[in-house]
Amino acid sequence: MPYEFKIVRRVEFSDTDMAGIMHYSNFFRFMETAEHGFFRSLGFSIVTRNIETPVGWPRVHAECDYKQPLHFEDEVEVQLLVSEKRSKSLSYIFRFRKLNASPVVEVAHGKLTVVCVTHHAGTKMTACNIPKEIADKIDVAPKELLGL
Amino acid sequence: MPYEFKIVRRVEFSDTDMAGIMHYSNFFRFMETAEHGFFRSLGFSIVTRNIETPVGWPRVHAECDYKQPLHFEDEVEVQLLVSEKRSKSLSYIFRFRKLNASPVVEVAHGKLTVVCVTHHAGTKMTACNIPKEIADKIDVAPKELLGL
Amino acid sequence: MPYEFKIVRRVEFSDTDMAGIMHYSNFFRFMETAEHGFFRSLGFSIVTRNIETPVGWPRVHAECDYKQPLHFEDEVEVQLLVSEKRSKSLSYIFRFRKLNASPVVEVAHGKLTVVCVTHHAGTKMTACNIPKEIADKIDVAPKELLGL
Amino acid sequence: MPYEFKIVRRVEFSDTDMAGIMHYSNFFRFMETAEHGFFRSLGFSIVTRNIETPVGWPRVHAECDYKQPLHFEDEVEVQLLVSEKRSKSLSYIFRFRKLNASPVVEVAHGKLTVVCVTHHAGTKMTACNIPKEIADKIDVAPKELLGL
Repeated sequence: MPYEFKIVRRVEFSDTDMAGIMHYSNFFRFMETAEHGFFRSLGFSIVTRNIETPVGWPRVHAECDYKQPLHFEDEVEVQLLVSEKRSKSLSYIFRFRKLNASPVVEVAHGKLTVVCVTHHAGTKMTACNIPKEIADKIDVAPKELLGL
Repeated sequence: MPYEFKIVRRVEFSDTDMAGIMHYSNFFRFMETAEHGFFRSLGFSIVTRNIETPVGWPRVHAECDYKQPLHFEDEVEVQLLVSEKRSKSLSYIFRFRKLNASPVVEVAHGKLTVVCVTHHAGTKMTACNIPKEIADKIDVAPKELLGL
Repeated sequence: MPYEFKIVRRVEFSDTDMAGIMHYSNFFRFMETAEHGFFRSLGFSIVTRNIETPVGWPRVHAECDYKQPLHFEDEVEVQLLVSEKRSKSLSYIFRFRKLNASPVVEVAHGKLTVVCVTHHAGTKMTACNIPKEIADKIDVAPKELLGL
Repeated sequence: MPYEFKIVRRVEFSDTDMAGIMHYSNFFRFMETAEHGFFRSLGFSIVTRNIETPVGWPRVHAECDYKQPLHFEDEVEVQLLVSEKRSKSLSYIFRFRKLNASPVVEVAHGKLTVVCVTHHAGTKMTACNIPKEIADKIDVAPKELLGL
């Protein structure tokens, strides 16, 4: 579907910290992995190789609400939903569900807003319109799925 | 001061990603480093060894707004300010300033809410009051510093 | 097989650095993931929950030879082979193969030696014999597989 | 000195894993930080901006021997010594010393071999001679320092 993507990951030893739980910064790595899988599911790579104007997707906002910790070897599903589509930016929400709990339980909830940019000489980035071939393939998720 | 702490870090090679900028998840590592330095500045460790009831500080909310990217070897100051103090939780805001820019520029702005917990047998955590010896040493920053 | 295990991973954006390739430290994370999958394939977790004496496996030696870089979205197979089994330690070799190359090419070669330890009061660790139920399930790979 | 450099770091919470000690892969991040500081101490950046031919330094070999674990908030000195200088490669050894132990104790010992490369169109790298202005500033450490 052009507004949803799911990945499943097992929490690795190197994802944990001395509190015995997944380090809170790693939830953001997992969100990004879902985002990049979403792009692949649409036939693109987040690192544009196969479209005319190469674009990048720096983050302008990221957040996460943590409800329950994840532990080593927990299996977690990360569901990405497109929550907003603008001419130059996309917003996603992410639901983290612990699959090896019965019943399956939502352990965290994230949000990400990314802006489409082109790179100029050197490292300077400028916001630009999302390339049409990408924008055409992405929809906003239905309100009931977004929990609105 | 009991409501503020600053660290300065140089962005390392392993903090960057293939976009040539600091990976967005690492801003959360830097926030935590400032938080733990704040605790040391008060005479504590975030890993309680020297108080009667050992407590932990899991995150319940984390967010970051990114305004400008950080690059390899940039010097960044992370300023922590206590924005809220409740019986069982603390909230912080963080200002990231790139020191090797002239003028110095704020590149990111973060927030963190942490809850004080005790650990029971196994891995179960329960929210508890912030130990008095810690709570007594922490103030909320003046509104003008918080930008309210 | 009691001397071999394979995992396949896709290189993630957060695994890369500003050189555009997987950061060299992440090969060690991937080795560990293969090691822990190997233990699960034998019916154990590297974090012993289901055997009588809980043991840990700190690393005493780790190394990696890098032949070719890995890039974002490369699919890499990590093959673990048990190269040595002693009463208190295990050694593994690891072959990293880039699957999305034709022909498939070995891009890195790693080694790991881990020691079996028990934890005493606090953080002190002491080397101990590998528990029989684990040792009995692990064989050393044939010399020809190890390339000896 | 043109063959030695030292950094001091405090082990951070995000450097630790659920075993309560610094994750073994992070010793390689610390080695790299010392390497890059060494280059800055010579007036260069590892990311060549200020020399004629931009070069990179991919790793071809990395290893570490772990003698004692590092814990959260430990202060560790990482000493880099140049152990070999060839026309296209450099080798370093690293000594990790825990400063908050009395007496100070060596907790790990690392090695790194890096090759000087130029980047061609795309991502292809070729080994090249170390630029003269860099090579001229680097010496091999005396044998007694290297422990040979």
